[in-house]
Amino acid sequence: MLDLVSLRRDFHMHPEVGFTEFRTASKVVEILASLGFDVIYGADAMDGDSRRGLPSADVLEAAYERALRDGANPQIVEKMRGGYTAVIGVKKGKQEGPAVAFRFDMDALPVLESTDADHLPQAKAFRSRYEGNMHACAHDGHTTIGLGLAEKLADGNFSGTVRLIFQPAEEGVRGAYSIVQKGMLDDVDYIFCHHLGTNVPLGEVHGASFGFLATTKMVAHFHGVPSHAGASPEKGKNALLGAATALLNIHAIPRFSTGSTRVNVGVLEGGTAANIIPQHAKMIVETRSVSEEVNAELEQRVRNIIAHSAAMHELEHEIEVIGGAIPINSDLDMAELAIEEAKQVEGFTAFKVSDSNAMGSEDASFMIKRVQERGGKGTYMAIGTDIPAPHHHPKFDIQEEILPRSVELLHRIAKRLLT
Amino acid sequence: MLDLVSLRRDFHMHPEVGFTEFRTASKVVEILASLGFDVIYGADAMDGDSRRGLPSADVLEAAYERALRDGANPQIVEKMRGGYTAVIGVKKGKQEGPAVAFRFDMDALPVLESTDADHLPQAKAFRSRYEGNMHACAHDGHTTIGLGLAEKLADGNFSGTVRLIFQPAEEGVRGAYSIVQKGMLDDVDYIFCHHLGTNVPLGEVHGASFGFLATTKMVAHFHGVPSHAGASPEKGKNALLGAATALLNIHAIPRFSTGSTRVNVGVLEGGTAANIIPQHAKMIVETRSVSEEVNAELEQRVRNIIAHSAAMHELEHEIEVIGGAIPINSDLDMAELAIEEAKQVEGFTAFKVSDSNAMGSEDASFMIKRVQERGGKGTYMAIGTDIPAPHHHPKFDIQEEILPRSVELLHRIAKRLLT
Amino acid sequence: MLDLVSLRRDFHMHPEVGFTEFRTASKVVEILASLGFDVIYGADAMDGDSRRGLPSADVLEAAYERALRDGANPQIVEKMRGGYTAVIGVKKGKQEGPAVAFRFDMDALPVLESTDADHLPQAKAFRSRYEGNMHACAHDGHTTIGLGLAEKLADGNFSGTVRLIFQPAEEGVRGAYSIVQKGMLDDVDYIFCHHLGTNVPLGEVHGASFGFLATTKMVAHFHGVPSHAGASPEKGKNALLGAATALLNIHAIPRFSTGSTRVNVGVLEGGTAANIIPQHAKMIVETRSVSEEVNAELEQRVRNIIAHSAAMHELEHEIEVIGGAIPINSDLDMAELAIEEAKQVEGFTAFKVSDSNAMGSEDASFMIKRVQERGGKGTYMAIGTDIPAPHHHPKFDIQEEILPRSVELLHRIAKRLLT
Amino acid sequence: MLDLVSLRRDFHMHPEVGFTEFRTASKVVEILASLGFDVIYGADAMDGDSRRGLPSADVLEAAYERALRDGANPQIVEKMRGGYTAVIGVKKGKQEGPAVAFRFDMDALPVLESTDADHLPQAKAFRSRYEGNMHACAHDGHTTIGLGLAEKLADGNFSGTVRLIFQPAEEGVRGAYSIVQKGMLDDVDYIFCHHLGTNVPLGEVHGASFGFLATTKMVAHFHGVPSHAGASPEKGKNALLGAATALLNIHAIPRFSTGSTRVNVGVLEGGTAANIIPQHAKMIVETRSVSEEVNAELEQRVRNIIAHSAAMHELEHEIEVIGGAIPINSDLDMAELAIEEAKQVEGFTAFKVSDSNAMGSEDASFMIKRVQERGGKGTYMAIGTDIPAPHHHPKFDIQEEILPRSVELLHRIAKRLLT
Repeated sequence: MLDLVSLRRDFHMHPEVGFTEFRTASKVVEILASLGFDVIYGADAMDGDSRRGLPSADVLEAAYERALRDGANPQIVEKMRGGYTAVIGVKKGKQEGPAVAFRFDMDALPVLESTDADHLPQAKAFRSRYEGNMHACAHDGHTTIGLGLAEKLADGNFSGTVRLIFQPAEEGVRGAYSIVQKGMLDDVDYIFCHHLGTNVPLGEVHGASFGFLATTKMVAHFHGVPSHAGASPEKGKNALLGAATALLNIHAIPRFSTGSTRVNVGVLEGGTAANIIPQHAKMIVETRSVSEEVNAELEQRVRNIIAHSAAMHELEHEIEVIGGAIPINSDLDMAELAIEEAKQVEGFTAFKVSDSNAMGSEDASFMIKRVQERGGKGTYMAIGTDIPAPHHHPKFDIQEEILPRSVELLHRIAKRLLT
Repeated sequence: MLDLVSLRRDFHMHPEVGFTEFRTASKVVEILASLGFDVIYGADAMDGDSRRGLPSADVLEAAYERALRDGANPQIVEKMRGGYTAVIGVKKGKQEGPAVAFRFDMDALPVLESTDADHLPQAKAFRSRYEGNMHACAHDGHTTIGLGLAEKLADGNFSGTVRLIFQPAEEGVRGAYSIVQKGMLDDVDYIFCHHLGTNVPLGEVHGASFGFLATTKMVAHFHGVPSHAGASPEKGKNALLGAATALLNIHAIPRFSTGSTRVNVGVLEGGTAANIIPQHAKMIVETRSVSEEVNAELEQRVRNIIAHSAAMHELEHEIEVIGGAIPINSDLDMAELAIEEAKQVEGFTAFKVSDSNAMGSEDASFMIKRVQERGGKGTYMAIGTDIPAPHHHPKFDIQEEILPRSVELLHRIAKRLLT
Repeated sequence: MLDLVSLRRDFHMHPEVGFTEFRTASKVVEILASLGFDVIYGADAMDGDSRRGLPSADVLEAAYERALRDGANPQIVEKMRGGYTAVIGVKKGKQEGPAVAFRFDMDALPVLESTDADHLPQAKAFRSRYEGNMHACAHDGHTTIGLGLAEKLADGNFSGTVRLIFQPAEEGVRGAYSIVQKGMLDDVDYIFCHHLGTNVPLGEVHGASFGFLATTKMVAHFHGVPSHAGASPEKGKNALLGAATALLNIHAIPRFSTGSTRVNVGVLEGGTAANIIPQHAKMIVETRSVSEEVNAELEQRVRNIIAHSAAMHELEHEIEVIGGAIPINSDLDMAELAIEEAKQVEGFTAFKVSDSNAMGSEDASFMIKRVQERGGKGTYMAIGTDIPAPHHHPKFDIQEEILPRSVELLHRIAKRLLT
Repeated sequence: MLDLVSLRRDFHMHPEVGFTEFRTASKVVEILASLGFDVIYGADAMDGDSRRGLPSADVLEAAYERALRDGANPQIVEKMRGGYTAVIGVKKGKQEGPAVAFRFDMDALPVLESTDADHLPQAKAFRSRYEGNMHACAHDGHTTIGLGLAEKLADGNFSGTVRLIFQPAEEGVRGAYSIVQKGMLDDVDYIFCHHLGTNVPLGEVHGASFGFLATTKMVAHFHGVPSHAGASPEKGKNALLGAATALLNIHAIPRFSTGSTRVNVGVLEGGTAANIIPQHAKMIVETRSVSEEVNAELEQRVRNIIAHSAAMHELEHEIEVIGGAIPINSDLDMAELAIEEAKQVEGFTAFKVSDSNAMGSEDASFMIKRVQERGGKGTYMAIGTDIPAPHHHPKFDIQEEILPRSVELLHRIAKRLLT
């Protein structure tokens, strides 16, 4: 029987950021296979061109080598090489019935974990072995819960199919879309996603979290012509003039009366030296809205502003979407069902069918939308845990007693729907 | 015989700005005709579409009515209606020979003339009758000199053809181009243009003034969509955002190592009310350079910046050239010839073959260039007069003794070339 | 007895825009006085320095002369000269009791009234005599209702004091503040303001309109140094560079998570000619928010951006507030009281205690806030009328049967509180 | 006797960039001391606070360690630790007389040297040992010439004092100023600076190079407040909005009629992530002019624009000058003297007293100006060498026969003045 705490601590010690979850995914494949699941992974589980914000080949390869050194199964990770780290475990029950999916995200963050004595992973010696990376958003817990759920369902004593989706690159809302585009959600009738923490205390469960924002993350590159700034400034085509013009005008996109909006140019980098007309500039832009349609219009306006800011200075440009999400419209009957089951789990003592405290954006939204588009239902739940520091903080941690309770909750949901 | 002083004072009292020189041009036609010149005027003398910065139909019509009230010949000005105020007097000599042209500009300025007692036109009662307009750049003198020259040449005792060009709208460098485009300079072998004053003292003559700048004056209109700024800002397309972006980027056009440059957005006007997203904006832009090619590139860059600043905010736009000039490369042998003749005229005591003190821009440049392109020659001369206040100043004035001397100089030049 | 329809049509024929309501206010003074009211007006009723967006002295004087020609009482308007057009009628009842105030706005709009045959004022011959101005927002009706109410209360058969406030310059939210600053609301226990129309149909009454936005309207002037753009561009200080920089950065003020916001640069004008570095620029800016505090922060950010955009280019600047308003937090018990009384008035058939359909901003907000600050109560009501065209439209009109009904409603409210 | 070619190749193999010339300077100190010169170096030779564009402490320390590994003298470089790499050799002659200084720059460039077989340092095995750094501007030759000159003057057979100044960090015009500020030029009567190459062919010598531009290089830091771009954008203070505004306005600084100008924002970097309001931004700016005064005004305008762009968005900022130079007004009599002596040197066959082909900027300008301010004289010479590729190119190289010839020329100049 799986030792959930040990498993979670092993993942915590080996935090792998988006699309480099080679070691984590390798372990997931091994365990799912050992439990008798059919396992889909690598390029079979995700559409390569739909991955967003993929790291450079060098970064991917270095992470791959590291995973091999740290115990990843060579036959398995070979299929993941180049950033194909999604894993989907499928178990058919002994009888016919609907298909129920659960989503678990696996990636870590580029955060330097605390070495303070009162930080439990430090005190208990399971702090990150990968200096500068950290599981500071509970995905180590999520992955563990997914495997615990697999163990419970391994006997196949249910009617229908279970589909456990282990997703890479949720941070930056980058990975889910490629799994959806590969068709992995096309035959799903019910989907349940969840997050630990998110300001919900231990013992409390929310059946549906509302308030996730539609968002698009883009990187724009401006390409000009360098020239000596003293000798022949007119021969240059100045990439930073284009980028600065775009930056000001993007921030000047009007407010929308049809829904709250956000725009941000989070990064701008360009030029090489005081005396050279800047040849290249790079800009990272984010849009958000409560509405998918308004966010789409924001994205279109940003693209138009960038295109014409570039052309104004005779620059070439390209824009790449490196992340994105849409709002989540959870089905309230699924939320109610989840809460009914949560009430049966020892340790859960406070309940809300729905709440609107969602923080930021989630690309599980693409999965839930796909299921709903095809007539299915889904919800995004919050399972409380007290946390010593906010999400993404060097001292973030979860309470490990939530792991078996979460497994039990998801198991009850699965059984309820697969009877 | 013409009384040059009376004639100049009559013109001074009736100052007509660019393309509204109906009364002035009517007088010119009458006098040229009375002297036996063939007179080309109206749409026969200028290409309508090539006129730049034409006033509105209302303004043209009001000036036309005023000219009729003040003695313009109805039959003549009928042909000038709508701003066709160029006049060209042609006189064939008794023998065959080359074609020699002289240029005289006729337009006044929107300057309110001084009423100070020490301002001679006030003291001598020939101050402007058209309040707010004034001959503050000596074009009243230029026109008078042209008519004085006509009188001298009326007997036809020369070999070849004389072509006296009375140009509208030199201010703003707007009128000459339309005369050139009508072909009025196509058969000219020699052309002499001149200006009184320009910081050259009485008694001094320059055979060629160098330093005129190439320039383009443009007006750009941005057209967006208005919307209530509180209720639905996102439905507007903001003309002022486009215009302000263009303004900053036009000023940020780089310096050129290949020639001194200037850019200026001299006027920007847009919007109607605090609570309306601005629908329209208008911008007046000027470029300059010592080089026609560099000025052409500046103009192209301005056009590109305006086009993309507009498109960035989904605006329509149009750009109209309202003025322009090119540098003047006077032929030094013509300058030398002029100085040789000047030395024969009593009253001229100081001489320079060439000088580089040209102020600003001159659209006689198009005439000289056309003559040179077809194998002819030309020069732009400065004829000195002391002035009590700078050009374009409410107290500007010329010394009237320069009128007959200038006529004699031009007559000598004509005779020299037409022998 | 007053003929309300005739009175309203007289006001409609003589529409006077903000701070020029000399004739209207003169009539109001005369009628109030004839009814035995104490009348406070001119500089006694408003603080001169607190008037916002006052027209120029020339405009004020021309309107003053026009009013004299059209029947204003010379003794009365003499006290209003220069834009002191507020009028307050005070009537003490026969017994002691609370002070109840009603607000009526008197100003018209710079709108050219329709001449279409189906426009009732045209058909019935009471179209505007002041071409280009029009009562297109029902203030002619409001003023009439105020006088009708005065007539009803003239007998003094009540306990307490009635204060009828006839306000200039509600359009642009400019006039109320000066009345408040003069202390005219300091002793008021209850205040009732209302608007006819506002998308509420005939027969319907709302006790409280919510949703009015806090707003500030500002005009900023930038002052630089002109210079010839060709000869010495570096000697200029370019007012338009400062203004364009301010414009872009004002629009780039971030969204607020603490409340919906709006910013708009509605007008920008600067410069005189293509070849002159622009010396002056003028900008009109508007901020809005659902929250007075957030609007105050927006105003502060706009001021800071303008100040530093000017200083960046070594420009002087000044900023003048030309209008402003705050949200209105009507007291619901007053709204309920109003609706109870409305139910007693024949012709009113539909009722809402409160609604959130307020359009834009209202400077009655300052009056209601002052009353509330001192422990009093107030509400802003909507009284329905069908309208053939939207507010501010050349074909706007009201249904005149609403006039006596509104008088009756306000009279009932007054009597209810003054018993 | 020194082997100049071996010496130059040793320097070429160990190229050290500005302020890290520990090994080079150590060798210079050793040789000068062995020749009986008094040697001033370390903090005695330069004012620490006046060094511009000093590398970070880490970079300095790494270069220091490398120098120790590669043969730098520990006792000597200890005094240079932290970037004090100037060396001045002083030799008093046997008789009294004037003080004559020569300047030699020692620093290399961050250029990756070519490995092509036809690149002589590759073929002859003296290519850079410090991958990524290269002597691509002949400073290895300059340093060698300085030491060769020291050897010639070691006997002290002259009247007066010789002062050989070995300068760090000429690239980026960063090092000379700190030597001047330490007073090292205060007692100098004559100074001679020179450069090899600069488009002058082998055999040709120019006595004075005119055309060096005044320049200032600045780095500006903008400091704001980060905030989550979705959750609370209004709590951030956006460093990139300030920087982008500064960038556009710096490029919009007007042309100067009083002298050719250049401005360039060569680098802009800011922000960390798509969803964070950017806290920091860094900008590198360069100004240039033919005139020191105009350049000073450009610098002042840049500072003002940066200060107000920052303050507009409530940012803190600081500006650091990281490089600078002024024009060089060489004394023509010194240039003539140099050419007279050059004519005595075998191998020099073409001569110009002065030329205006100076490329870019030189901070020897500060040294020459200081000497001239105190009544002395100086010149900046060009000594030709054919070069296979332009200065700063990976295949740049010099012809080594120029080394002894240059030594002889400088020796002759010294003897001429010290007789």
